[in-house]
Amino acid sequence: VGSIEEFAAEREALNENVMKYAGLTIKRFYGLDARAYRDGALPQKTKELLGLVASMVLRCDDCVAYHVIRCVEEGASDAELQESFSVALVVGGSIVVPHLRRAVDLLDEVRAERGGGADPERP
Amino acid sequence: VGSIEEFAAEREALNENVMKYAGLTIKRFYGLDARAYRDGALPQKTKELLGLVASMVLRCDDCVAYHVIRCVEEGASDAELQESFSVALVVGGSIVVPHLRRAVDLLDEVRAERGGGADPERP
Amino acid sequence: VGSIEEFAAEREALNENVMKYAGLTIKRFYGLDARAYRDGALPQKTKELLGLVASMVLRCDDCVAYHVIRCVEEGASDAELQESFSVALVVGGSIVVPHLRRAVDLLDEVRAERGGGADPERP
Amino acid sequence: VGSIEEFAAEREALNENVMKYAGLTIKRFYGLDARAYRDGALPQKTKELLGLVASMVLRCDDCVAYHVIRCVEEGASDAELQESFSVALVVGGSIVVPHLRRAVDLLDEVRAERGGGADPERP
Amino acid sequence: VGSIEEFAAEREALNENVMKYAGLTIKRFYGLDARAYRDGALPQKTKELLGLVASMVLRCDDCVAYHVIRCVEEGASDAELQESFSVALVVGGSIVVPHLRRAVDLLDEVRAERGGGADPERP
Amino acid sequence: VGSIEEFAAEREALNENVMKYAGLTIKRFYGLDARAYRDGALPQKTKELLGLVASMVLRCDDCVAYHVIRCVEEGASDAELQESFSVALVVGGSIVVPHLRRAVDLLDEVRAERGGGADPERP
Repeated sequence: VGSIEEFAAEREALNENVMKYAGLTIKRFYGLDARAYRDGALPQKTKELLGLVASMVLRCDDCVAYHVIRCVEEGASDAELQESFSVALVVGGSIVVPHLRRAVDLLDEVRAERGGGADPERP
Repeated sequence: VGSIEEFAAEREALNENVMKYAGLTIKRFYGLDARAYRDGALPQKTKELLGLVASMVLRCDDCVAYHVIRCVEEGASDAELQESFSVALVVGGSIVVPHLRRAVDLLDEVRAERGGGADPERP
Repeated sequence: VGSIEEFAAEREALNENVMKYAGLTIKRFYGLDARAYRDGALPQKTKELLGLVASMVLRCDDCVAYHVIRCVEEGASDAELQESFSVALVVGGSIVVPHLRRAVDLLDEVRAERGGGADPERP
Repeated sequence: VGSIEEFAAEREALNENVMKYAGLTIKRFYGLDARAYRDGALPQKTKELLGLVASMVLRCDDCVAYHVIRCVEEGASDAELQESFSVALVVGGSIVVPHLRRAVDLLDEVRAERGGGADPERP
Repeated sequence: VGSIEEFAAEREALNENVMKYAGLTIKRFYGLDARAYRDGALPQKTKELLGLVASMVLRCDDCVAYHVIRCVEEGASDAELQESFSVALVVGGSIVVPHLRRAVDLLDEVRAERGGGADPERP
Repeated sequence: VGSIEEFAAEREALNENVMKYAGLTIKRFYGLDARAYRDGALPQKTKELLGLVASMVLRCDDCVAYHVIRCVEEGASDAELQESFSVALVVGGSIVVPHLRRAVDLLDEVRAERGGGADPERP
């Protein structure tokens, strides 16, 4: 309990400020963004892994952090996350490494805060 | 039977030329690239979808074409591909659209060449 | 009359194919894309210049071509286009140059096809 | 009066250090950078909006901050800025969202520090 | 004799068209671009290798082709080019591979056209 | 003695955490990354300059910092670094400027911490 909730709270506050001034295009974009990750032919967990890899190769730390947390919430195991990290690293190259470092660090923290329970392979 | 086999043949010939001159770093990178998509905690199909979305947001047509073909080979349905395209489009924005157009066009061609059978939803 | 109409026709045909398979997320994204360039506090011409510069720094030839044509349709003069090219070049660097070359070439062609009339400074 | 002036002061100090060691290429580049935004066929306000959108789709927070401040100085209204944000978001996708959040937050701060007066629509 | 000279001729013709309409900012940018690669503390060959790696990780085929040709003109050996390709591939990831394939293919062609002599290690 | 050692220590600690969970693909990638910069046909100093320019045009501050430090360790002079910065700035455009500012600032600090000795031109 700490930095992850702070991350979520700050994100929320900034999004509210965006909405305060946003016109219809920005509002609808936010709606589309949510819609793209809903269950469908692919489950949410897979879609969050897609979002995670896309965020890593585009090297956006905020986006990576958001999707790491969402992947854990959808029950992604460490092994599934590590394999997704591997794809991102091979596609995107060493320029992805600093983001990988922060993603692994955050994942550790997320597991610790939530009792690690989301990954049955962690004691 | 036609442009897709040509695409594969040209890719093959160019890769052979790369290998002819490549040092150990490049050779090993090719090995890692293959390894990242093998079955593991995530099945190959999911990993190919990850590679596809990464390629779309980074806007590499050759990479998109390769992963579209591989996704079909791994049995991805049209719906699964469309949802992956949606994530790529929302993450990457309208700059992805020209690549989306070519990806959908290629997918059509792949289904036609292979009898469409890989997607049970296509007649 | 020629390559510009072909460009538009091919773009149209590919977009129709996208729509044939697209789910709601992709369809709505296309709607948002159109909405973002409508007249508002900023006139369409300015918004098309914004789209042009964004496309140049992201180095998407199809997008650059589309916005060059739209800018001319909205009455942008050569001088306005050149100054927008300058901003894109300075922001994006020499990696933008190949796209600048093709943009200037296309602009020439667009002016020739349409009698150059859109730019009162061209004879 | 606070963080915005700090931002400008730090930027200034770092630029002076760049100049201390810079050769002619870097010095001239700085000159070109200034020149690209001068009044011409397009007014400075439009050019700053072009720079803002380019900075957002390339996802450079420092550049976005600089152009938001410059846009306000050139008299851009909230509506003009929001429509420019919309173009950037649609072109660049959700990967732009974290930068949009910080841009809107900064804009709020700029208006507050300067009495909001630059935008006649704000009370 | 053939495609490489065509590449240079087309590039030349398009650049002349750019200059025909260019304002001072674009003209000066072209001057800076030339200046950055001149002999200095680092020899031209090293600077062309820097330009090559930058072009590969930014994935611009025209720029890669230009710098491959220039590197050969400055006497870069195959081994030096291969090691530069390795750095680009590792930094930029598999998304660089299609550009690597085309770079190696072009290099082969350049060596063939010029008698391979620039690289003493090629017979 | 201070922020540079902290930078190295934090990097080290995060990398150890990456290794704790990493599968074979990520581990081997780290090995490749090290291998790409070893002495060969090109000396390490040149390869570090290649890595530096690649990092600047891809705009990764952590990577730029790492390569600035490595370049100094390999004996790169201020003039060699400035010319490499110039290539990066011209290729990558003004979007590189914030990274240039931080690189020059860090270089100053590295020279100060190490007595400046690595560059014989600094007193």
